[in-house]
Amino acid sequence: MLHNPVLPQPFTLSEAYQRVRSWTEQLCASLETEDYVVQPTADVSPPKWHLGHTTWFWEHFILTPHAPGYRIFHDDFSFVFNSYYESVGRRVLRTQRGNLSRPTVAEVYRYRAYVDEAMNRFLADRSASAELENLIELGLNHEQQHQELLITDIKYILGHNPLFPAIDMPVNEQLVDLPISAIEIPEGIYSVGFQPEAGGFCFDNELGSHRVYLKETTLDGPLVTNADYLEFIEAGGYRQFQHWLSDGWAWVKANGIDAPLYWHQIDNQWHTYTFSGLKPVDLTVPVCHVSYYEADAYARWRGRRLPTEAEWETAALLPTKNRLPWGLRWEWTGSAYLPYPGFKTAEGAVGEYNGKFMSSQMVLRGGSIATPEGHSRPTYRNFFQPDKRWQFTGIRLAAL
Amino acid sequence: MLHNPVLPQPFTLSEAYQRVRSWTEQLCASLETEDYVVQPTADVSPPKWHLGHTTWFWEHFILTPHAPGYRIFHDDFSFVFNSYYESVGRRVLRTQRGNLSRPTVAEVYRYRAYVDEAMNRFLADRSASAELENLIELGLNHEQQHQELLITDIKYILGHNPLFPAIDMPVNEQLVDLPISAIEIPEGIYSVGFQPEAGGFCFDNELGSHRVYLKETTLDGPLVTNADYLEFIEAGGYRQFQHWLSDGWAWVKANGIDAPLYWHQIDNQWHTYTFSGLKPVDLTVPVCHVSYYEADAYARWRGRRLPTEAEWETAALLPTKNRLPWGLRWEWTGSAYLPYPGFKTAEGAVGEYNGKFMSSQMVLRGGSIATPEGHSRPTYRNFFQPDKRWQFTGIRLAAL
Amino acid sequence: MLHNPVLPQPFTLSEAYQRVRSWTEQLCASLETEDYVVQPTADVSPPKWHLGHTTWFWEHFILTPHAPGYRIFHDDFSFVFNSYYESVGRRVLRTQRGNLSRPTVAEVYRYRAYVDEAMNRFLADRSASAELENLIELGLNHEQQHQELLITDIKYILGHNPLFPAIDMPVNEQLVDLPISAIEIPEGIYSVGFQPEAGGFCFDNELGSHRVYLKETTLDGPLVTNADYLEFIEAGGYRQFQHWLSDGWAWVKANGIDAPLYWHQIDNQWHTYTFSGLKPVDLTVPVCHVSYYEADAYARWRGRRLPTEAEWETAALLPTKNRLPWGLRWEWTGSAYLPYPGFKTAEGAVGEYNGKFMSSQMVLRGGSIATPEGHSRPTYRNFFQPDKRWQFTGIRLAAL
Amino acid sequence: MLHNPVLPQPFTLSEAYQRVRSWTEQLCASLETEDYVVQPTADVSPPKWHLGHTTWFWEHFILTPHAPGYRIFHDDFSFVFNSYYESVGRRVLRTQRGNLSRPTVAEVYRYRAYVDEAMNRFLADRSASAELENLIELGLNHEQQHQELLITDIKYILGHNPLFPAIDMPVNEQLVDLPISAIEIPEGIYSVGFQPEAGGFCFDNELGSHRVYLKETTLDGPLVTNADYLEFIEAGGYRQFQHWLSDGWAWVKANGIDAPLYWHQIDNQWHTYTFSGLKPVDLTVPVCHVSYYEADAYARWRGRRLPTEAEWETAALLPTKNRLPWGLRWEWTGSAYLPYPGFKTAEGAVGEYNGKFMSSQMVLRGGSIATPEGHSRPTYRNFFQPDKRWQFTGIRLAAL
Repeated sequence: MLHNPVLPQPFTLSEAYQRVRSWTEQLCASLETEDYVVQPTADVSPPKWHLGHTTWFWEHFILTPHAPGYRIFHDDFSFVFNSYYESVGRRVLRTQRGNLSRPTVAEVYRYRAYVDEAMNRFLADRSASAELENLIELGLNHEQQHQELLITDIKYILGHNPLFPAIDMPVNEQLVDLPISAIEIPEGIYSVGFQPEAGGFCFDNELGSHRVYLKETTLDGPLVTNADYLEFIEAGGYRQFQHWLSDGWAWVKANGIDAPLYWHQIDNQWHTYTFSGLKPVDLTVPVCHVSYYEADAYARWRGRRLPTEAEWETAALLPTKNRLPWGLRWEWTGSAYLPYPGFKTAEGAVGEYNGKFMSSQMVLRGGSIATPEGHSRPTYRNFFQPDKRWQFTGIRLAAL
Repeated sequence: MLHNPVLPQPFTLSEAYQRVRSWTEQLCASLETEDYVVQPTADVSPPKWHLGHTTWFWEHFILTPHAPGYRIFHDDFSFVFNSYYESVGRRVLRTQRGNLSRPTVAEVYRYRAYVDEAMNRFLADRSASAELENLIELGLNHEQQHQELLITDIKYILGHNPLFPAIDMPVNEQLVDLPISAIEIPEGIYSVGFQPEAGGFCFDNELGSHRVYLKETTLDGPLVTNADYLEFIEAGGYRQFQHWLSDGWAWVKANGIDAPLYWHQIDNQWHTYTFSGLKPVDLTVPVCHVSYYEADAYARWRGRRLPTEAEWETAALLPTKNRLPWGLRWEWTGSAYLPYPGFKTAEGAVGEYNGKFMSSQMVLRGGSIATPEGHSRPTYRNFFQPDKRWQFTGIRLAAL
Repeated sequence: MLHNPVLPQPFTLSEAYQRVRSWTEQLCASLETEDYVVQPTADVSPPKWHLGHTTWFWEHFILTPHAPGYRIFHDDFSFVFNSYYESVGRRVLRTQRGNLSRPTVAEVYRYRAYVDEAMNRFLADRSASAELENLIELGLNHEQQHQELLITDIKYILGHNPLFPAIDMPVNEQLVDLPISAIEIPEGIYSVGFQPEAGGFCFDNELGSHRVYLKETTLDGPLVTNADYLEFIEAGGYRQFQHWLSDGWAWVKANGIDAPLYWHQIDNQWHTYTFSGLKPVDLTVPVCHVSYYEADAYARWRGRRLPTEAEWETAALLPTKNRLPWGLRWEWTGSAYLPYPGFKTAEGAVGEYNGKFMSSQMVLRGGSIATPEGHSRPTYRNFFQPDKRWQFTGIRLAAL
Repeated sequence: MLHNPVLPQPFTLSEAYQRVRSWTEQLCASLETEDYVVQPTADVSPPKWHLGHTTWFWEHFILTPHAPGYRIFHDDFSFVFNSYYESVGRRVLRTQRGNLSRPTVAEVYRYRAYVDEAMNRFLADRSASAELENLIELGLNHEQQHQELLITDIKYILGHNPLFPAIDMPVNEQLVDLPISAIEIPEGIYSVGFQPEAGGFCFDNELGSHRVYLKETTLDGPLVTNADYLEFIEAGGYRQFQHWLSDGWAWVKANGIDAPLYWHQIDNQWHTYTFSGLKPVDLTVPVCHVSYYEADAYARWRGRRLPTEAEWETAALLPTKNRLPWGLRWEWTGSAYLPYPGFKTAEGAVGEYNGKFMSSQMVLRGGSIATPEGHSRPTYRNFFQPDKRWQFTGIRLAAL
């Protein structure tokens, strides 16, 4: 019996496995076959790749080494569905994920069914060692990360199609933030990072709980809304280099950026692509799909700043009544993604997990409407390059 | 009753329309839905785009202007399926054909059925004017051009997939050339170009029949075979800059070229992708999928040259018993693609057809195993940039 | 005693050598040291490179193999001053000519003086074999080609400097064309290409005299002037895709082209950079510094065309009173640069001279105000890619 | 009388100005004219640009606004010598610094003399306001930054020339580090950042002194030497992806990196370019010209890490006998370059100074053999992108 923090209630590993795997497929329930295949930009993966890659994880890290007699589904799928670009195996073709029509979507679902059956048998048969339980828990969390990417990648694929198709997707893009007052953090020394003794799962980059001195500061209660952000646009924010980091200004000019991702001005009215199709921008919801460059420029234009990740985590762990609520948007922080003191990469392929990305990325905290329930926590460190904005990213301001 | 030279026997326009349209769909009969969608390189279009684009041609040039009461199938399809990259209509998204999951393959087939029904009604109802007949004939030839592209693009899509899938495709890649003797062209003044008074269809770039003086020369009877070409490879032809044009050598080095497209060396044996999957290279068939750079380098290495397009056309029109047989490979000539004397671009959008490509391309003559029956003729001028090789291209040598 | 066609009167080889070498240096007489060093674009070479490269030619092809006891000036200069980008010698650095501050300009002049002294001694001492005479003549013509490039490259360097400096350069940019009437070419079979039996020097690409059938046609007497060309600009020629080749239109849009090279619109008045500085465009002189794309678009807009190289050569060799005068601008022809019948690359490094560039370039005929006197002739074939326009290129029209 | 911390002893502003300005020119004393002109890579500026740009600073920020009757030297120099890439003034040419032969080196020196004379008169005449004194001090520090860049850029220019020329440069590349023992930092709360109340100059990015909690840790006494680093190379460090950040590994592979910048393996012996020419690598000196990626990979391979900037600053400010000595190499820290708490960009053009670069760069601390004496200090924050290595950068390790 596993007390699994990635899911709301206690589940057996086997139940957790089935729930997570089935949720992945539910997210794709209203896709057309063609939607599974395309890759309109390098950051986005075709949905069928996510379905195959998460399946390959179970096959490669659990079944092949631990399930006696397991036979892999297809020799070439390891090559097609691993996430490493280093050459593997006998032939090397310079392919990109979005160029591959085969394996078909139906074959990928057969692959999932085959691996699920083997996993269900495996999980039913034995009580796993603690080490194996940890690996399975990592696999569940890994698949949840890809669940969020599935949502954001599907939105990118459909939102860059001139037909702007609508589909059913269990994500509430209309959710409005709570009108709470500012969160005050008293000066002090705080502990930052995941504390394993409290139990539960975390990623390697959260480990290394350490002390941080913070000055007194204040974080806004609600996130920046579309109405707030529209003031920046209408004040000419995208045309004035003073507000922007040097790299950010180069990005604005090279890409002709003048609004958040998915925004289109039609007959002088801003619209945005949502899973319900192209809709007028709802001014009351938190601004979404902004890059770090935009979040930083907006904050500077307001004479404010983004919180650091230590401040954010501290605010999210304050005593209940003054605690920061979160979960609508991944919130850009002013902190670069760097190792915590004492961070050490784990041995083996799983050890590559997070550490190797620790340069030129910024930390995001919280979670979004696309994050699976129970997946995130106050110590969770998400990270992206400063120009990325296809995730459900938003802005919270702090006092300068 | 139209005496239609694009088809072997006399057909009504309506029969010709149905035959051509149905052949396009037959070529796709064994594709998976996913195969219709991807675009692994800019030269290749997704099969569903070809299906939609050829349909748009009929809708845009015949039905909309000429069929009273015709309603277009979908407002946005003109944007998605025209072949011009200039911005069209109200919104401009920088999309590439291979990024579009919608319209789905099923919708594209519905589009075809809708337009076919309207065309059939249109063709049955009236006797078309001569001008309209010409436009319809152009449409039929246009669709045949896309039939050949469908074959070559499908081959590229599947031949660049690490699973190297086999499919049914009505193309005989094993056809061997006839062992005939060399074709001798006597010195003289010859007429080159299509002669409209003889009747039948031609493209605008074949018009302007004109006289050309030719020295006596000789063209090889059979095409260069894989066995011949392998000697060039094994003699180090791809590693010696002396044989290559300057641009060709840069292309070899930048792309690491060491064999024709689709060739892979596995355990010291050359294999090639065919519609039957990855197979050992058949030494007896004509070499295929070579660029002009390769054709030219091979010829120089042999101390020979490629024929000019005037020589080729003359050889293909000699009295029967000494006439050049053709049709297995598009044959690179040593002639640049330039206007014939007096060439003038036709008015209107159809006038853009061929003339605007008359720079930096080479002429290919003949036809290939992928060319629809009856589509080509001795005066036909095909053309591609000198580095292109995804068509069924081959080499015929002439005396220096 | 050599009857040297590259120079106006009979000279000894030794006199010819001294005249050509000294003219090269005279062209640089008013340069600042800094002007010798920079390379603002890949097509342009730094003047000191031209000075060194032409010197290396004499050292490498004449002195080292033929002058007993000659010692090369500097081991590394062969690496620095040859024109091949293949790696040479022990170390390979990815350098570009414009990145090299050393050898200094003074050292390059010392190199010239050293080689000139050896050459003068060599030419004085012996009567050269016919083969050696030919090689020396090739060297003289090679240096003259670089004299023209020196002029065009210096113009590019100074004309892309925001200070638009003026210098003394023996080139008359104000020369106006003769107001002669159109040149009529009667139908017939003409001989094209250099005829060695008439004596004199030619490049390998002119050899292979051959017969060509020409229809009756007419070439304009004068070149297109700036006044003519301005009408095209003012009629919106650069904004209408219909006039342009597909590649040409892409070039216009990618580079924001809206006028010939060196033209700047200042206060609604077109100016152009000349060796006298930035000056108002002189409407009476032939348009200069246009690409093939521009020449072709202009001709199409006028309902005319460019002559073929065979027509041009024929017109330039007609009986005197109806003969085409030439020499103000290199004239774009409608002919691609391809080998003449029977063309064969010569053996050895000198054999690389011209043949390897025979793809994707267009032929220019005639000569320009920057061409050394006596260097060109009616059979001379110059060639550049269709987007190049830093040479003194112009337009002559022919009847469609 | 200014107590100027940028210089070893008290100087008047006027004396300080003359010393700094004259040192800039001394650094160029042994250059050839050609060395001033070239720009072999975008990071490097031509020396004459540094000479002109530092002069433009005085003209633009001091003389033009504050010296009555001052006339600028040349209208276009502001365009040529400012460091902003935004379009300025009437004409915009897409030029790069390395393409400009004019103004000549002699003109740039005349520009310096003209401005120096005006500055000397200006500084002699009046006692400057505190604000103006600050601006002048900023100008002196700005020019010192360019002194260091002059040295590194000249090294790059000569070190990428196949002749590997030697010149006189007042930089001791043979200096060996002190063999001191490790620096221990006790746990505690430390103050980080410049404290203005102590007096002296600092840049804006050092302001905002703030408290930081540090765990007990240890920094190595000496820097990593060439001997140490060679062990990494010989152990295959550049061929094993496990040691590298993901971005770093991509950089290694894309650029074929296998050693520090300027290293060349000749006959199995590592050589390095120095101002004395190409020399065998001296194993005893600190490794130099490494990127952050290399520093980080080396540290991970050793099972160590780079110090944070707070640790480094604390170590450099410990009580004397346990204090970190520094000044041979700019030391990569594990800290991203981000604003200190409360950082606010100053108003106006000078305010752009440092803040806009605060993304995707890493902090370097200390100073190098190329840093002007008195220019750096323990709170000084240098910063570069993680792939840059043409500065005199090195590695100090800390305990994990």
